[in-house]
Amino acid sequence: MSNKELDQLRQQVDEMNLDLLKLINERARLVQEIGKVKEKQGVNRYDPVRERKMLDLIKDQNDGPFEHSTVEHIFKEIFKAGLELQKDDHRKALLV
Amino acid sequence: MSNKELDQLRQQVDEMNLDLLKLINERARLVQEIGKVKEKQGVNRYDPVRERKMLDLIKDQNDGPFEHSTVEHIFKEIFKAGLELQKDDHRKALLV
Repeated sequence: MSNKELDQLRQQVDEMNLDLLKLINERARLVQEIGKVKEKQGVNRYDPVRERKMLDLIKDQNDGPFEHSTVEHIFKEIFKAGLELQKDDHRKALLV
Repeated sequence: MSNKELDQLRQQVDEMNLDLLKLINERARLVQEIGKVKEKQGVNRYDPVRERKMLDLIKDQNDGPFEHSTVEHIFKEIFKAGLELQKDDHRKALLV
């Protein structure tokens, strides 16, 4: 009976996945820019204080249904991926 | 000198984080609805074929800078969190 309902919900999830993908990659490009600015300034890429501030702001705005700990976990993975990207850019810059 | 530049980029990242948070929680609400429909149908919540299809669609649309493997890793964490949410809802329903 509700297979149509399920299909519709799934289609919405698929669309939302692609919106998420777009945002995640946009964020990654910004993080690459930040990496370049920091590189010029000779500043360390990993900044735990800045990471904590970002997480505090995110948790402050989180009204669920995901709990703070879940949101924090997902964002830490996104932060880690961004940092890896900056490291890759740095390695590539050294190889030029 | 470019501290202003860095601050501006960081502000953009903060805004993007909150957009991401909103989308992640919207997705979670949809996944909760899907869980309820499946519960009524007596279908198993975890569906590896559906998960694979979602990932294929996401990777198909991924144009970086994140690599497919990174995107897949992040989305798997989001999927896992959604599944946990459905399980929690199920437990709460049993306790009523």
